[in-house]
Amino acid sequence: MSAWHYAGAMGPKHMTPDEFRRHGYAVVDWVARYMEQVERYPVKTSVAPGAIMDALPKAPPEHGEPFEALLADLDEVLMPGITHWQSPNFFAYFPANTSGASILGDLLCSGLAVQGMLWETSPACTELETSVLDWTAKLLGLPERFLSTSAGGGVIQDSASSATLCAVLAARERTLAGEGNRLGLADAGGGLVAYASSQAHSSVEKALRIAGIGSAQLRLVDVDARHSIDPEALATQMRRDADAGLRPFFMSATLGSTASGAFDSLPAVVGPCKLHDVWLHADAAMFGAAACCPEYRWLHQGVEQADSYCFNPHKWMLTGFDCDCFWVADRQALIGALSIMPTYLDNAATASGEVIDYRDWQVPLGRRFRSLKLWAVLRYYGVAGLQALIREHVALAQELATWIDADERFEIAAPHPLNLVCFRHRAGDAANESIMEEVNGSGALYITHCELDGRFTLRLCVGQAQTNRGHVERAWHAIAAAAP
Amino acid sequence: MSAWHYAGAMGPKHMTPDEFRRHGYAVVDWVARYMEQVERYPVKTSVAPGAIMDALPKAPPEHGEPFEALLADLDEVLMPGITHWQSPNFFAYFPANTSGASILGDLLCSGLAVQGMLWETSPACTELETSVLDWTAKLLGLPERFLSTSAGGGVIQDSASSATLCAVLAARERTLAGEGNRLGLADAGGGLVAYASSQAHSSVEKALRIAGIGSAQLRLVDVDARHSIDPEALATQMRRDADAGLRPFFMSATLGSTASGAFDSLPAVVGPCKLHDVWLHADAAMFGAAACCPEYRWLHQGVEQADSYCFNPHKWMLTGFDCDCFWVADRQALIGALSIMPTYLDNAATASGEVIDYRDWQVPLGRRFRSLKLWAVLRYYGVAGLQALIREHVALAQELATWIDADERFEIAAPHPLNLVCFRHRAGDAANESIMEEVNGSGALYITHCELDGRFTLRLCVGQAQTNRGHVERAWHAIAAAAP
Repeated sequence: MSAWHYAGAMGPKHMTPDEFRRHGYAVVDWVARYMEQVERYPVKTSVAPGAIMDALPKAPPEHGEPFEALLADLDEVLMPGITHWQSPNFFAYFPANTSGASILGDLLCSGLAVQGMLWETSPACTELETSVLDWTAKLLGLPERFLSTSAGGGVIQDSASSATLCAVLAARERTLAGEGNRLGLADAGGGLVAYASSQAHSSVEKALRIAGIGSAQLRLVDVDARHSIDPEALATQMRRDADAGLRPFFMSATLGSTASGAFDSLPAVVGPCKLHDVWLHADAAMFGAAACCPEYRWLHQGVEQADSYCFNPHKWMLTGFDCDCFWVADRQALIGALSIMPTYLDNAATASGEVIDYRDWQVPLGRRFRSLKLWAVLRYYGVAGLQALIREHVALAQELATWIDADERFEIAAPHPLNLVCFRHRAGDAANESIMEEVNGSGALYITHCELDGRFTLRLCVGQAQTNRGHVERAWHAIAAAAP
Repeated sequence: MSAWHYAGAMGPKHMTPDEFRRHGYAVVDWVARYMEQVERYPVKTSVAPGAIMDALPKAPPEHGEPFEALLADLDEVLMPGITHWQSPNFFAYFPANTSGASILGDLLCSGLAVQGMLWETSPACTELETSVLDWTAKLLGLPERFLSTSAGGGVIQDSASSATLCAVLAARERTLAGEGNRLGLADAGGGLVAYASSQAHSSVEKALRIAGIGSAQLRLVDVDARHSIDPEALATQMRRDADAGLRPFFMSATLGSTASGAFDSLPAVVGPCKLHDVWLHADAAMFGAAACCPEYRWLHQGVEQADSYCFNPHKWMLTGFDCDCFWVADRQALIGALSIMPTYLDNAATASGEVIDYRDWQVPLGRRFRSLKLWAVLRYYGVAGLQALIREHVALAQELATWIDADERFEIAAPHPLNLVCFRHRAGDAANESIMEEVNGSGALYITHCELDGRFTLRLCVGQAQTNRGHVERAWHAIAAAAP
């Protein structure tokens, strides 16, 4: 067989392997240069709405263009509209750090371009994912029941939102014994009620809407002074709902709230969940990564009682988006909720029951070979390397907190055991908003805000791969200088 | 500012930009070599369940390993378990072709690693996507109402499954005036009924299950001899449901069924949909790409009356998975169903109403810069290049059909206007199954099957980037040789 084929006379002109090498090196160089220079850009772009679109043509070209033209337009047209999530001065939202290892693992995924919807469609894609999810469970000290060698197992989802949706669906069908899928909620799903703290991520409510349960059936339970769920209030609410003939079915515990990093206590919520046969999901989207360090494993206390758990290596574990790791204790509950088997996907491996078909563990059918990038990260850094990253970032955030504490104009707004510090100027909302606008507008750093105890609160989250003490120090100086 | 930072003394050892260049070139070389050699591998692996997992360590390494170790294990451990979707001898399922331009566009996405959840979080990510979706709509001759300059617009989803789910949710909430999201279907969603042909993709039923509507509320309408929906049967069923006090709300028209490429007629189903105020979604997952050629635009006839439409550049348009293009005629209906706005995402651009926040157009919150790869493909090939690809593949499939037709042992099983040919040996199911097993087991090609008119039917789909006449010819010879 010949080494490489062009399509016939009628076909298009593809990039040859040699051309791919040449353009590929150029793109690798572009990315390496971006790594070197990312700090020179304003972190947050100040481009006006519509400016980028206006600079782009209104239709695709009739004839193909050289690849170089794309790189030129990337620099000239697109880069001015980029906010730089990989900047070491990015402290906004949550980190979305990545790494050379992840980028190259993902390049292998794009190059192989296999479909992982069934074991049959590329067995290595499924089996590497299963292995790497087992590795990651061990990395975080997660319980045996989430390993593929148990009745449970792990899967990569695009995001914690999708993991939460899958957990809601598995819970819904466990409670309804499959009748929700069959008959729908109007006929078979009355009275379902879900629970989360008032600090839970909006994805919980979104999942309940999508799943047909409705916002009104979500009880946003009060939190204590630390913004953690009040377990007494939860137990009371569940009992009240059950007494009213309703069916508590799902609880999402927040292991680190988006606003302030507040942790619900799993040991404290497990009791009421068990009592009412409620599916307990634990969402550790950003903070879960910290559990690779034994000294931070407290954040997972009680997880051995959870029905499902997720965290995002694409936030604070050097793996590019999208990569959410989602584990369940009972894989049959998940598969039962999501499996559907048309004839055109029949195959002997599936029929044997010996293999995992990950399409039954997620909403979409198709799937990328995403475990390659996570595998690359775990191998390139090793357990010790990931621990070093977490420890460095936590130490930087703790040092920042001492500086804030020492400045009488400011107050710390919430506990900050890990890499997120919430704080505010004592002069009130307008002052804090103005500080944020000023520092973000300078381009030197990027922070965001949340509402905490009804007040406009600044958030600074340390998590980008290249952030070091100097970046945090300069960020604090800029904030302090912008303060009245 | 300095060019590149290592983390402090405590931090991990990251790959430096120079090391990234070196490893990046090696991975580019690996992918180029894979392109050159993909044809030498057995298309379908014959690895046994568990073999890959058994060859992998049971836990992540304690200390980081050189990147070269990963590439070595990729070759030795993983490659034997890969089924090669990029082989020119891959004729199974649907194509999932990719191209050098797409791979490098995606590498830029991984390298920039921005979050596109909001316009605010990286405006260029949103605006390039909006532009490129407009380009693609023009490429396919889609109606004005799907362009961002109208009340509609396009968005990239991971898959047609997710696009269908979003269409179901938008339809559900349009019919329920938002009360499904608010109260849930048990309280507000009784009597919803959806429609599709009996040949529709399983994702329609899966979406209805997820959305809480239930399989029992999906009417799988009969098809005619060409496996297209019977519009009379559809009209009758909708009328009957409406007369019974039910609420027809969603119809998914199949523009090319997965089994045999059967097309529902949009002009024929629009009438009953309008009459009952039913959301009409059109799913052209694979075949939509053909509409870049004016002579195949018949496949979209009537789409100007549809409420939503999707197709997958990741199937037959040289763009690596995941990339489904989804358009709606009324963006407010979609956003109304999927938007949720927590304080921590508040920002001035969103509040202004001048920008698109794509998180409100999809299920997850986070999103990759996926439009880069589609932009790269559209620019590298141009309209003419994509047309050439489609024309080449259709011509090859048509020639294959003449060979099948000329062999008296075989019969063509369905119309084959484009790149998919369904056929069977006249000796019955066992003979066809045995032919499939034999040719797939040889590793020389890969085909799959479907059930058509109750019979085991072979499918051969021409769509891989490098497939030429020789590959199709050899595939047919192998099939003919395996036939009794």
